[in-house]
Formats: sequence, C-alpha cells, structure tokens
Amino acid sequence: MRKYLLTTCVGALAVFAAGSANANDELIKMSQNPKDWVMPTGDYFNQRYSKLKQINSGNVGKLQVAWTFSTGVLRGHEGGPLVIGNVMYFHTPFPNIVYALDLNNDGKILWKYEPKQDPNVVPVMCCDTVNRGVAYGDGKIFLHQADTTLVALDAKTGQVAWSVKNGDPAKGETGTSAPMVMKDKVIVGISGGEFGVRGSVTAYNIKDGKKVWRGYSMGPDSDTLVDPQKTTHLGKPVGPDSGTNTWQGDQWKIGGGTTWGWYSYDPQLNLMYYGSGNPSTWNPKQRPGDNRWSMTIWARDVDTGATRWVYQMTPHDEWDFDGVNEMILADQNIGGQARKILVHFDRNGFGYTLDRTNGELLVAEKFDPKVNWATKVDMNKSSQTYGRPQVVSQYSTDQNGEDHNNKGICPAALGTKDEQPAAYSPDTQLFYVPTNHVCMDYEPFKVSYTAGQPYVGATLSMYPPQGETHMGNFIAWDAKTGKIVWSDKEQFSVWSGALATAGNVVFYGTLEGYLKAVDAKTGKELYKFKTPSGIIGNVMTYEHNGKQYVAVLSGVGGWAGIGLAAGLTNPTDGLGAVGGYAALRNYTALGGQLTVFALPGS
Amino acid sequence: MRKYLLTTCVGALAVFAAGSANANDELIKMSQNPKDWVMPTGDYFNQRYSKLKQINSGNVGKLQVAWTFSTGVLRGHEGGPLVIGNVMYFHTPFPNIVYALDLNNDGKILWKYEPKQDPNVVPVMCCDTVNRGVAYGDGKIFLHQADTTLVALDAKTGQVAWSVKNGDPAKGETGTSAPMVMKDKVIVGISGGEFGVRGSVTAYNIKDGKKVWRGYSMGPDSDTLVDPQKTTHLGKPVGPDSGTNTWQGDQWKIGGGTTWGWYSYDPQLNLMYYGSGNPSTWNPKQRPGDNRWSMTIWARDVDTGATRWVYQMTPHDEWDFDGVNEMILADQNIGGQARKILVHFDRNGFGYTLDRTNGELLVAEKFDPKVNWATKVDMNKSSQTYGRPQVVSQYSTDQNGEDHNNKGICPAALGTKDEQPAAYSPDTQLFYVPTNHVCMDYEPFKVSYTAGQPYVGATLSMYPPQGETHMGNFIAWDAKTGKIVWSDKEQFSVWSGALATAGNVVFYGTLEGYLKAVDAKTGKELYKFKTPSGIIGNVMTYEHNGKQYVAVLSGVGGWAGIGLAAGLTNPTDGLGAVGGYAALRNYTALGGQLTVFALPGS
Repeated sequence: MRKYLLTTCVGALAVFAAGSANANDELIKMSQNPKDWVMPTGDYFNQRYSKLKQINSGNVGKLQVAWTFSTGVLRGHEGGPLVIGNVMYFHTPFPNIVYALDLNNDGKILWKYEPKQDPNVVPVMCCDTVNRGVAYGDGKIFLHQADTTLVALDAKTGQVAWSVKNGDPAKGETGTSAPMVMKDKVIVGISGGEFGVRGSVTAYNIKDGKKVWRGYSMGPDSDTLVDPQKTTHLGKPVGPDSGTNTWQGDQWKIGGGTTWGWYSYDPQLNLMYYGSGNPSTWNPKQRPGDNRWSMTIWARDVDTGATRWVYQMTPHDEWDFDGVNEMILADQNIGGQARKILVHFDRNGFGYTLDRTNGELLVAEKFDPKVNWATKVDMNKSSQTYGRPQVVSQYSTDQNGEDHNNKGICPAALGTKDEQPAAYSPDTQLFYVPTNHVCMDYEPFKVSYTAGQPYVGATLSMYPPQGETHMGNFIAWDAKTGKIVWSDKEQFSVWSGALATAGNVVFYGTLEGYLKAVDAKTGKELYKFKTPSGIIGNVMTYEHNGKQYVAVLSGVGGWAGIGLAAGLTNPTDGLGAVGGYAALRNYTALGGQLTVFALPGS
Repeated sequence: MRKYLLTTCVGALAVFAAGSANANDELIKMSQNPKDWVMPTGDYFNQRYSKLKQINSGNVGKLQVAWTFSTGVLRGHEGGPLVIGNVMYFHTPFPNIVYALDLNNDGKILWKYEPKQDPNVVPVMCCDTVNRGVAYGDGKIFLHQADTTLVALDAKTGQVAWSVKNGDPAKGETGTSAPMVMKDKVIVGISGGEFGVRGSVTAYNIKDGKKVWRGYSMGPDSDTLVDPQKTTHLGKPVGPDSGTNTWQGDQWKIGGGTTWGWYSYDPQLNLMYYGSGNPSTWNPKQRPGDNRWSMTIWARDVDTGATRWVYQMTPHDEWDFDGVNEMILADQNIGGQARKILVHFDRNGFGYTLDRTNGELLVAEKFDPKVNWATKVDMNKSSQTYGRPQVVSQYSTDQNGEDHNNKGICPAALGTKDEQPAAYSPDTQLFYVPTNHVCMDYEPFKVSYTAGQPYVGATLSMYPPQGETHMGNFIAWDAKTGKIVWSDKEQFSVWSGALATAGNVVFYGTLEGYLKAVDAKTGKELYKFKTPSGIIGNVMTYEHNGKQYVAVLSGVGGWAGIGLAAGLTNPTDGLGAVGGYAALRNYTALGGQLTVFALPGS
C-alpha cells in the first residue's frame, strides 16, 4: 500500500514537474499519449481522435457503465473532462464548479473549486448558463468563468495561482468558452453577440496572467491586429481599415463577432485558428455592409496575435449564422496534392475545406441538403463574388425588410451545426459531424442598443424541415469532395461533441440522453445507453490502469435545450428554440452527471 | 407495431380496472405479484422482500446499469419508485415532482406532475426537503406534498382527481412521509416535531378525499382515539386521559409525537402500526412527565382509528429518540410458539420484538453495542418499571439540567437507525438493518414556543463512537433472540433502505453513493457500484419483460447529508449533523438520479 501510494505520487510529480518546461512542448507531448486527454479538444488540431482501441467496433456493444458522478449543478453541461495521469478534471455550468477526482480511488474528490460570482451574470447569458471546459498547462488548470474571470488553479491543490478579468458582464460580456494553452500563453474569447459585445481573443501569460495581446474581430487595424498588406483574404491583401470600412459609422463598436467557440493551433505554422460570430444586431437592415470581420475564419500568429489571413464566410449575415464553430486541422491529399487543411462546419450549413497555410478556399458544400438560404458558395476565382454565398432572395431577411416574417429558412439560426464539435479520424479520413436538421421563420425588427441589454432585433420560430419529423443527423463527411458519406437520423439535434477512435468507433450523445457508438466506416449503431439527462457534452476517452474508459457529461440545456433548462414554455422564447424542442420534455429532465463507460472485466 | 401498442394498452387497462374493486384486496393481490412493486414498503408488512431470484448471490457480481434518469431536482432523495405493469412512478424532494415513466420505451416520460407550492414551506422542513414516496390504489397515485396537501392523481394521465390539505405549514406542519392505502382509505401522517406540531395520522376516503378519522398522538381520548378500558399498554388498560395526564398543563397541545415514518398493516387483524415521534421541545426540563403518547408504537383499527394497543418505548425522551421508524410484521416461531410479531428498530438503539396482536413485549435488545444512554429495557413483568429503559444518569440530559453539555451519548439524536427502512427475509428469518454508528454531545436550553418557529431547545455535536472512525454498520438481526448475526462496517451511516430477495441477496445504498449487494446469510459484499450521488433512497426490485431489475434513487441529503444539501458548514448546524458528516463532501455532490440495474444479456 505504501509502495503503491509512492508510485502514484511520483507519477503525479512527473506530470506536474513537466509544467515548468515550455507549456507548448509539454502539451504536444502529453496530447500524444492516448492514455490522457489533456485538452478539451483532444489535441491542438481539434480532431477529437484517440489512438486507444481496446474498445472497438467488435466489442463496443458490451460496454457498461463503470462509475458515475453527479456534479451537483443542473442546466446545460457542455464540454467534457480532462484526464491527466490519475486525475480527472471537469467543470459545471454556472456557478462553474471545478472538480478534481482521484481515478485511483473510485472518483474520490481531491479538490473542488467554486468561484464566487455575481449571479447577475446569468441574465446576460444568451443561451443557457453553459461552460465548455477547463484547460491544462504549466501545472495549472484554467477556468474561464461566466463573469469572464480567467482563473489559474494549482492542478494539485485547486488553490488560485492567479486570476484576471477578461470582460465586463455589465456590458453583456460573459465567459462560456474553454481556454486553450498555446506556448506560454492562455487564450480566451468572449461571449455576448446578442448584447452588442465586440468580440476579441486575448492571450495571457501562463505564469502570471499578464495580458500579452488582444485581437478584436472588428475596429481599427491596431485593434484587429490586421496588417493591410500582409493579412490576406482569399489570397489578396485586405487593405487599410478593413475592420471598420464595411460598417456604418461607429456601429463596429457594438458589432458582435464574438469568439466563444473552440480554438485550434498548428505549432509548426505557429498559427491559431478560430471563427468570429454574428454581427450585432440580428436585424440586418440596421447594419448595412459586409460587417467585417464578423462571420470570419481567423489565422493569427500565437506570439503576437498578428493576423495571417481571414476568410469571411457569411458577409452581412441576415440569419445569425454565427461563425464560431471549431476549425479541425488535418493533413490530407487533395487532388493529388498533400495539403495542410482546415475543415469547418459552419452554422450557415456549408462545410468548408481551406488550405490553412494561406487561407485558400478548396471546398465549400452544403452538409445538409435542406440548406436553402444560399444556392452555393461561388468558387470561381475570377468572379466578383468569389468565396461568397449566393443568397436566395426569398430567404434574405434584409431584402424582405423589417417586420416581415421570412418563413421556411433552412437552417435555423442555431445552424446546421452549432458549437457541438465534430471529430476526425485519420484512419477513415472522414469527419464525423453532429448536426441540426432545423428550419425557421425569422422576423427582424428595429432595436436600439443599451449596454448590458439584449440587442437581438429578431423573432424566431424553429421546426424540422417540411415533411420531416427528425431534427438531427449524425453524418460522416468527406472534406476532399464536400460529400456526405453516411448519415444517421436523430429525433433531435445532435448537440453533443463527437469522439473518433482507432477502434473504428465513433461516439456521440443525444438530447434525449443516449450515449451512442457507431461504426466509423458505415454509421451502423453498435451501442446505446440512456444516461440520466440529455447530452450536450463532448465524449472523451482515456486509459487508466490498462483499461480504456469513455466518459461524457449529461445535463440537458444549451440553446436547443433552453426551454427545459430555464423553464420556458412560450414557443418563441429562447430565440425560437423553446417551441422547436418542446417534445424534449417527454424524454428527459434537467441533470448534471458524469457517466464513465468501460468493457466488463478487470 | 399497432399490435404491440394494443397489447400494452390492454395490460394497462387490466391493471387499472382492478382499481374499481376494493383497493385493499387489489393491493394485497398486486403486492403478491413479485414483478410489480406497488407500495413504497414493498408490501403491507414492510418486509421489503422480493420473491424474484433471477439476480442471486451467484450472479449479482455481474450486475450492470441498465438505464438511468435524472429527476431534475437536487437535495436529498428519500423513498423509491413504484412499478405497476409497464409503468414506473416516482417522486422528488421539494417541489415534489411525480414522474410516470414508460418501461416499454426506455423510460420515456408518460406524464409529469409538478405541484405549485409556496416555497416558504422549505424553511420549516427540519431535515432537508425530503419526501418518501407515492402510493398507489384505486387507479390513482397519491402524493403527500411538502405543504401537507394530499393529492390523488389519475395513474394513467397524471390529472388531479382530488386533493385535500392535511395540515398548515404556517404552524410548522409539513408533509414528508409516503401515504399508504389501506382498504378504502389513504392514510397520511405529519412532520414538524421540531416546531411543536402535535402529531396525528389521518384517514381519507380514497374516492373523494373526505376525512374519515384522525388520531392524535396526545390530547383528550377523543383526539387520540384511545379507549381508557379497551386500549392497552403492555397488557393493561391505559386508563382515562392518558394522552394528557403525563403532561404539564396544556403542553400536550404543542407536544410533538409526529408521525412521519412508515406505516404497516395487517389485513387479517385490520390493524395499522406506526410510531410517534419525539416530544417537543428537545429540552426535557421544560416538559416534565412521561409525555404520552410520544415515542410510542401504535396499533389502530383501520376502519375507525380506534387504538387497540400502545407501547411507549422512551418515556420522557431526553435525546430526540424519535419513535417513527417502521414496524416490520412477520410470522415467526419464538420459544416454540408461532407468533405474529412486529419488529422495530428504534432511534434509541433498541431492537424490539412484540406480539402484534396484543402489544406484548417479547424482546428488547441493543442493536449496536455502543448504545450507552440506557443499560437495558426492564423485561421483568412484575417490575414497576416493566418495559422502560433503564436510563444511565451520566447521559440523562434531564437530570444534568439545562445548559449542561452532556458528552458522549450513544446513539446521537438521529438514532442507531432513522427512517431508512430495514428489510426482512422469510428465507433467512433475519432482519437487515441500515444503522448509524454515531454518538453526540447534547446541551439542552430553554426555548419558548412561537407557532411556525423552530422549537428545538438543544445544541448538538455528532461524531463516531470513541476510538472508532466508521459511522455506520449494515447488520443482520435475529429478532427472536435480539442478537446481531453479522455486521458490515460502513464509513458513513447507512441512510438507505434495504431490500432482501429470494436470490439470497440483500441490497442497500451508502452515503458516498455506492449501491451494494451482500450475501443474505453471511453479509459478504458481492457487488458495488458508485451511483452519481449519495444514496438515501430505498432499493426496490421489479421484473419487466422477463428480466429482473433493481432500482434506487441517488441524491445525497436527509438529516445526515444536510450539510451538503443545504450548503451548511457550521459544525453544530443541521442539529449537529453538519460537523459529524463533514467528510462526505470528499466523496459526493448533490444529485437526483434513478439508477436501474440488471444482469447483462436480454
């Protein structure tokens, strides 16, 4: 027993001692150890792929629940746990409790951190009180609290090492995204696009929390860290004042473009990638112009924040097609050429493949055939509208004007996919995408801006595509060609993050609460289990004492589950989601639980 | 599919049609079908024994989680589900939601009932916001809400058939106990012993909720339904005014003796059995006398409420040894004589065996050797103190006076056992008892009565017996001899109800959250699984589509878990439990989940 404890401690020390080396090198090394899961995204490439294959398509049907843990908090549980050595770390929605559990001791609580936050932050969280996870680096656990405090906790004790305030909830700025550690920096974004917040990403020094750089989504070049000559958009320099000159007057100051999604990082290129969100307000009539750089894929230098390239997917958004979804990095051979690609499934319903070195647009295709607001993305390089979606007038909420109810737009505002992250398997070369199969009616109306008050300016209803009853699909996608390889219907949107493994299995969760495992090649369902509550968390896997585990947080909520989470019943509440997902209440109730699965036997 | 649905509906109709016959006959018949679990206590005898044996001591080690369900409510989940045909019914703590789940459809929610209750009832619930379950009868589901409303819900639709108010929360009266249907009546008790509530049981007509009779624990004979001549105490008539003449003045009006435990029923004798609680206040100096009929086992005629016999276990209580724990009925051969026995494990640490036909005291022995407040119960029938505990002066909080801290009293106020019900196996003839292994310091102080305000009058600390660290035991008890047959140590009090089965397995839950299965003959641990939260619910079993399931509610709380449940940290808060159970926070967090287990395979 004594010897056993000693071994454990040495193991733990070995892990944390590494924290004093370059955090980047440490994390790259740790993320290559499939036994651990050291960042919410699995790795810097956001592939959410594990080399573990003890659980595989042949035996996953025998999966069992190994242990469980209630978080003590209700409402939507997005994100998922980290595992580092013998310790599992995870978080809850507001009030953002962080737990460290001892995997050697049946999940005994090693420490628990519960921040003291002003509860007045809750009313300025647009779409449930979610948080997408904690990050690890340099022997610390980083939490981005709802009140925008970025706090560094000693991974061994849970004691606060440092903390810094990233924004101001009084202006509608909140924290929901997971931080990411890159090199000696911790990078966080900001939420609040429905409150006229101007989005930014900010890098803090991992040692003391000192701000290193901040890059805004719009504003003067000095704010956006965009260089008129060196920063390119589809291969061309963006020119001066690109972050202000497509806005009317000072509207860019309350222009949205928030940054609450996932970040990815290519250490070789030293570039980080992420998307900026919708322009504020949702009423497009009020903000003429392309509203750059909302709805944009960004490539920034991690050391300086300098913008290498941008690509605006949805200029002058008219549907809240927030561009924050994750950028998945992979290396594929496209058209006989080895490419460093970036793949992105946007809310607008297009799946994009770009060359991540320079932002070249390779593929842009609909990943749900029901997408109807645009016919296609113009791929003709010599065209005036190269790279732009070809908007269908019938569904243009700008062209049809204020106070007009635009019916039958697909997808709905929450997109063909929202923040729920996709996974990529290098084995199959396929992307596994949880999707929403939802359309909407959208009526923009005039709204005036008051700091800290909702600045939405549209009324919505949501429902399945005409003639259909299911609201989600889980699909496999070929990013080389922009084609769906297989598609599994789901009754509700799949609002859980996917996991791909070397065992030829892909995992995801459903809003009713099922954890499902499907064959990576065919999509055939191999296993399902009904967890306590609807799943909007992201599935992860780890190995402990020679055994592979799969873990997921349950806890229905998020935008799709806001009716249940916030107790709303008016169909147009929750920005239209309440009515769309009303049937969810027949399947599940609020919760907050971790469920850990394994194969039987020791 | 159509055929399948039809079969289901016919089955459901068959069950509910029976409701129109005598509810008593129906329930007796239904409780003999081991596939169902039609009352919280398993059967009228409170044996919590199932004839199912698909899961047995040979295979229970292979048990798996079959499905789970989050209740959407945090804090202590006492009680457990009912299963009738293809439907499972269960409840939550305040706000007392009732769910009906479809067992044919992965626990889909058939209906959900959420009462509207004044949240001001919560502060007058002494020991967490618990509720111990719903009852079935006459095609209705009965819920006793926190605000004392007894509501009858249509079992098929959840629609309210009738409701009646049993008490007044403004006076500290609350509802926590499960109703029980006996013949054409629904019987409920009342909580509030810490608020000077005068306890009573009340019978309502099952058809319309009309009050049929009410029997108080103290007061004039017309209130207690005690007959001076016909009602006996240890074989002798109680004489006139027995419910008032051991009280000073009008103190009986605020005298406690509440009735929030379990009820049992012998249809042949037409008698119901239950225990009355502590006298109010906890400061014994303020209420001289025996304080009859607090701390008493009652046998009442179900038709009229008339009291056949009483037995006061702890006259003039000085320790809050509330007498509400369940009465388990069984038929055993004692000393060569076939006896209809009643077995009761009291908070005071004595396990009693009585002849339930007449209240004859057969056995009274300590079921924890650490019990020290009394040396024994006087069993000498010719003694003046026959049937009375022999109190040790050192631990007499009355003799030592007000404002004296009486140290080292065992058990603590929450008793060697609290409401967590024991089980009985006719196969082994043993009783399986979840126990608290806890001692206390107790300091009484003067308190004055104000309606609806706490009327406690004592400060407590709790801790394990000297020289020990574990706070619970799960024991097997021979009620014929009053001896412990085997005893399993537990780190914390076992605050979960036990289940015995024909498979030679006994189940119980722990405050850390484990569901455990032990060998009924030896107590050997055969299986354990860590559920999401600490277990204070009662384990039950049922069969569905040929498969045996075991189910339990998790959700730490109750008196032992009040620190976690109510977020208290001052050690003497929660009537002393907060300090005693402080270490619980290292093992579990708040929850509210149902976990259902089965063997692998179809």
